[in-house]
Amino acid sequence: MEVLKRKNLILVEWIRMDFNQQLYEYIKEVDMYLNEFLPNEQEIPDVIVEAMHYSVSAGGKRLRPILLIEAAKCIGADKNMVLPLASAIEMIHTYSLIHDDLPAMDNDDYRRGKLTNHKVFGEGMAILAGDALLNYSFEIMINNVPKDIDNLRNYVKAIQEIAKAAGIKGMIGGQVKDLECEGKTMDIDTLNYIHTHKTGALIRASLRAGAIAAGATKKELDALTIYGEKLGLAFQIVDDVLDIIGDEKKLGKPVGSDKNNQKITYPAIYGIEKSKEMVDKLLKEALQKIEPFGPKSKFLGELGIFICKRDH
Amino acid sequence: MEVLKRKNLILVEWIRMDFNQQLYEYIKEVDMYLNEFLPNEQEIPDVIVEAMHYSVSAGGKRLRPILLIEAAKCIGADKNMVLPLASAIEMIHTYSLIHDDLPAMDNDDYRRGKLTNHKVFGEGMAILAGDALLNYSFEIMINNVPKDIDNLRNYVKAIQEIAKAAGIKGMIGGQVKDLECEGKTMDIDTLNYIHTHKTGALIRASLRAGAIAAGATKKELDALTIYGEKLGLAFQIVDDVLDIIGDEKKLGKPVGSDKNNQKITYPAIYGIEKSKEMVDKLLKEALQKIEPFGPKSKFLGELGIFICKRDH
Repeated sequence: MEVLKRKNLILVEWIRMDFNQQLYEYIKEVDMYLNEFLPNEQEIPDVIVEAMHYSVSAGGKRLRPILLIEAAKCIGADKNMVLPLASAIEMIHTYSLIHDDLPAMDNDDYRRGKLTNHKVFGEGMAILAGDALLNYSFEIMINNVPKDIDNLRNYVKAIQEIAKAAGIKGMIGGQVKDLECEGKTMDIDTLNYIHTHKTGALIRASLRAGAIAAGATKKELDALTIYGEKLGLAFQIVDDVLDIIGDEKKLGKPVGSDKNNQKITYPAIYGIEKSKEMVDKLLKEALQKIEPFGPKSKFLGELGIFICKRDH
Repeated sequence: MEVLKRKNLILVEWIRMDFNQQLYEYIKEVDMYLNEFLPNEQEIPDVIVEAMHYSVSAGGKRLRPILLIEAAKCIGADKNMVLPLASAIEMIHTYSLIHDDLPAMDNDDYRRGKLTNHKVFGEGMAILAGDALLNYSFEIMINNVPKDIDNLRNYVKAIQEIAKAAGIKGMIGGQVKDLECEGKTMDIDTLNYIHTHKTGALIRASLRAGAIAAGATKKELDALTIYGEKLGLAFQIVDDVLDIIGDEKKLGKPVGSDKNNQKITYPAIYGIEKSKEMVDKLLKEALQKIEPFGPKSKFLGELGIFICKRDH
């Protein structure tokens, strides 16, 4: 990885040879949790359960649940307590993709190399599948509150964090602005608003919710928050760069869509090289923030590098 | 009211001359709560806040929040504790109407005499406004949990009740079945499934959530649950009857849409007179259930009569 060739001890310390294998197994594990949490009861109309499973199992990288679990681990929490939160945040992410792909929004036919939800189940059912996943994410979170009173209070605060980040002050706010700006010239402030809200808010909330549920101190929470903010922005810039220079097969979607849609992006403003430099800087600053957690944050750091250096 | 002319002491006891005035003031009060809970901050893109307000203030009867508050009152709870739950359940109801009216669903241009959300704000924004209201309803509920531990535990159970009723095992399940059956011949079991889920579940949950948050005993909860179930079904039959014999001006929407859409309904199967008799029977059984609460359930009883005897 390019970043390792640079004279930067912090980064070198973080990497292990078997990270990719470990991440792959982690993703499989999260897939299993998601599958366990998703409904499959007979009493429910089959098609909606099928539509929900279809998009949730469409092969996401499970970054948000993994970030949430790892943030909780940094604080020393039992992983099992935060699994409902982790599964819920992935379902929220998935519902937002289903609705975002609709003809009335981005009108995308493919996502992660598979037909989008409405192309398979029809528009009406895709709207309901999105609604169902959003509602279900709250069902999961609220149905699995811890019994212990201190844990319960922290857990409720973690749900508050996720709910806010998913709503109009977070993800939906970003989507609204994105929709409003379609086909219009956008300034850098608006671009930043969309990035920090549409993608950034849920990534930031993953780290914060994991930390809050685990009972983090203010200092610990602040460190993980900044890690999440830097990583969220880097994630989006990488996305934009990949839309220009990425491999369609690896990405599972056509490249060049931002240019075709005349979307303003970081590489469009600053160029590809400058954008890559920004990602490296953000990554470095992010990793410094979680260094104090020591070995407990090793996987989180590696994941940060993975996010910034991914080719899909 | 026709029902009062019948020899039925239980019903006669419930009614007061000033009920309509009192209901009107109650609705205004709930409108005020809703307005207070809805966002209006500067930081949020204006259009989504406007779209949310547009549909929430479109003049609903506020039955669900009033049922929730009144159920809590039957148990003797402080009204203020359940206001977030009451406001949230109306927002959930409103989001479901916005999405239900979309071209990909029922494709309705008017609702309560006003243009539907997507006719004013566009399809994409209407999808987001619905998403925003659903998410916001959970934000309101989870941000206003009581501090006291016993109240907190009951309140969390009340959120569980609402979340389940709004989801695939409740309202969304009913919408899915409704969408699936569009243009198909429906049997009475399917009709019942749609009614008990699409409309019934949230009405039932209004009563249950209010009771649960207030710490109802099993017996109290059972009574209010049955009241909610009977009333929910009666509500839907009245809706179907009004679609045939109602006044378009009072209803704020065209009548005859069920017939035009070849929808199977209670009056279509049993005729109008038999359907009205069913409503009367359901109402009587419902009122008997809440009689043991005495004066505390007076308004709830009157509201039941209002729901069954309304002309809009």
